[in-house]
Amino acid sequence: MKIRNAVKELDPYVPGKSQDEIVEEFGLKKENIIKLGSNENPWGPSKKAISAVKDEANFINRYPESDLKDLKEEIASYSGSNVSEIIVGGDGADEIIDILAKTFIEPKDEFIVPLPSYMYYEFLFKPYGAIPVYAKWNFDDNTLNLDSVISAITEKTKMIFLCSPNNPTGALIDQKDIIKVLKATKNTDIIVVIDEAYFEYSEVNNVNLVKDYSNVFIMRTMSKVLGLAGMRIGYGIANSEMIEFMHRIKPVFSLTRLSYIAALNTLNDKQYIQESIEKGIESREYLFNELSKIKSLNVFKSYSNYILIGIKETGKTAKEFSRKLLKKGIIVRDCTSFKGLDEYWIRASIGTMEEDKKFIEIINKLINEISE
Amino acid sequence: MKIRNAVKELDPYVPGKSQDEIVEEFGLKKENIIKLGSNENPWGPSKKAISAVKDEANFINRYPESDLKDLKEEIASYSGSNVSEIIVGGDGADEIIDILAKTFIEPKDEFIVPLPSYMYYEFLFKPYGAIPVYAKWNFDDNTLNLDSVISAITEKTKMIFLCSPNNPTGALIDQKDIIKVLKATKNTDIIVVIDEAYFEYSEVNNVNLVKDYSNVFIMRTMSKVLGLAGMRIGYGIANSEMIEFMHRIKPVFSLTRLSYIAALNTLNDKQYIQESIEKGIESREYLFNELSKIKSLNVFKSYSNYILIGIKETGKTAKEFSRKLLKKGIIVRDCTSFKGLDEYWIRASIGTMEEDKKFIEIINKLINEISE
Repeated sequence: MKIRNAVKELDPYVPGKSQDEIVEEFGLKKENIIKLGSNENPWGPSKKAISAVKDEANFINRYPESDLKDLKEEIASYSGSNVSEIIVGGDGADEIIDILAKTFIEPKDEFIVPLPSYMYYEFLFKPYGAIPVYAKWNFDDNTLNLDSVISAITEKTKMIFLCSPNNPTGALIDQKDIIKVLKATKNTDIIVVIDEAYFEYSEVNNVNLVKDYSNVFIMRTMSKVLGLAGMRIGYGIANSEMIEFMHRIKPVFSLTRLSYIAALNTLNDKQYIQESIEKGIESREYLFNELSKIKSLNVFKSYSNYILIGIKETGKTAKEFSRKLLKKGIIVRDCTSFKGLDEYWIRASIGTMEEDKKFIEIINKLINEISE
Repeated sequence: MKIRNAVKELDPYVPGKSQDEIVEEFGLKKENIIKLGSNENPWGPSKKAISAVKDEANFINRYPESDLKDLKEEIASYSGSNVSEIIVGGDGADEIIDILAKTFIEPKDEFIVPLPSYMYYEFLFKPYGAIPVYAKWNFDDNTLNLDSVISAITEKTKMIFLCSPNNPTGALIDQKDIIKVLKATKNTDIIVVIDEAYFEYSEVNNVNLVKDYSNVFIMRTMSKVLGLAGMRIGYGIANSEMIEFMHRIKPVFSLTRLSYIAALNTLNDKQYIQESIEKGIESREYLFNELSKIKSLNVFKSYSNYILIGIKETGKTAKEFSRKLLKKGIIVRDCTSFKGLDEYWIRASIGTMEEDKKFIEIINKLINEISE
């Protein structure tokens, strides 16, 4: 059997342990596990969304509507854009990334990613024969290294991914820097993708750039503050021409019937969104303050719903450290697989206040145990 | 902006009218519309699935599990195969088709489709630069034209799609013919995809071929007899090596949390499946018998949950005819967009007995009106 060369070089994806496996391996009770590994909304989905999903459950024998008109209108109003500037994806932002590649990427095209950043761009782009070119993140002041992005641009560059707030560093990319990248790519075929998966937690965004720059693409997900990670909904905002091109190849039924209903009803639930943002920021600031008190941790200021933590001074690798936390019922993200980070970084998502307090207690205890 | 050539040539997808649009345009009541256009299960989803979905709705803020182990075990048991031979897709069979292309198709590779057949193979394969090569269906006895398939094979052929029961003709492809295609492609890199979306209604299948032929791929969906069209779940069965290759590039979270739960609980609901098959066959036979009584219709025998109907003798095109049915509240599929069919074919899905009777009454009335 002959598989494509681009696929041959990929490693099989090794999924993280499922909650069931963790329960079994560590003898834990499922209800005692605190999930701080996937940057979810820990307060649960919108009650309006839950109720709408339950009502719609009787009709899941019917195909979803394909035009998603109501949902696009709701997103336009939520994001301050127009319906013709919106594309909705059915596998979170992941389908949007895939459609970007499928619409614009030819084999050997290059895409630029400042490291460390979300690793899935690469996972989805490589099968199309695209070549990653890495730019840098400044670790000293947690900012984008703008020069490294600009100087990475070549004639082969087709896309640039700027994640803001950046996963996993948590910092924002200054809009002035984004504009410099947009100016440097004006009159080229390069698309600048701004991944705003976590923008709500930073209370700023870059949608205003869409009207001035035809090559900017704002990428979003409903998996974070909107509390719908399980329903796999993402969207993109860009000028109508780019959106129309992408619609030509987008699978027509990729959003499930219940995802559609959940998205619509969550966006309608303004109070839920507002509270999720407020509680999220409160939780993040609490975690930042408490973690900063622990001397052996290098805690990064975050504008998102997670915090990057350097643990080198504990003398343990992220693999060892996160396993020890797991034994105590805390799931964090071991960041070893993030390119651009060494093996001494973990990322912790916000939890509810109760979960945060337990986490702080447990991580303090663990660090004491290690240093004894 | 530079889009790929393969995309440039594609037409934007024009979605069918949504139920809301139909309600508005024709002044109908939503509850009076009979949906016979999309080959769904008209009796609704499994009650066990509905109940499980409702219970799980509270947790949709959490990502889905990525390994889908339980679901693969259930599918293995349902289909008589092994877990390592199964891949699950998150957009019905459509994601499976996309992964097939992404794993195996290089630009300019050819794929063979006997016409008429499911048009979505082409929609999903063309963006990868693949070239469709058309074989034929025998209209006189509603069978596959085997010679046209075998003689279409060239050095560039990478995949052959055999849909059985075939959409939209409703006929089965004889396993002897499938084996001839498999023998003709032995020791090549050609994959023979058998699309069994509707196999339950035919009460035969081709899974037994997987152990003998490493290049066969059985494709299935849960959108039909299993009553989960809205949840977008498909799966494929093939030898473990092929499945492992495909898993390398399959997006890890493409199945929603509720789709997973719905699939698991439907497969567990043996009584629901059995009744859906029995009622489906009863409905199909009723429709076939009643439609066959109408002289001006050319009704095809079906082993599936839909019936292909030639309407040339009515003097109306499928577009005109289906619009007239729409006005009377019946949605059928205007087959004009199926390559290999002229503009005089419609396809009607099974309904509940009550819906079937109404449909037969209305189509008889319509034909009388036309001939007056």
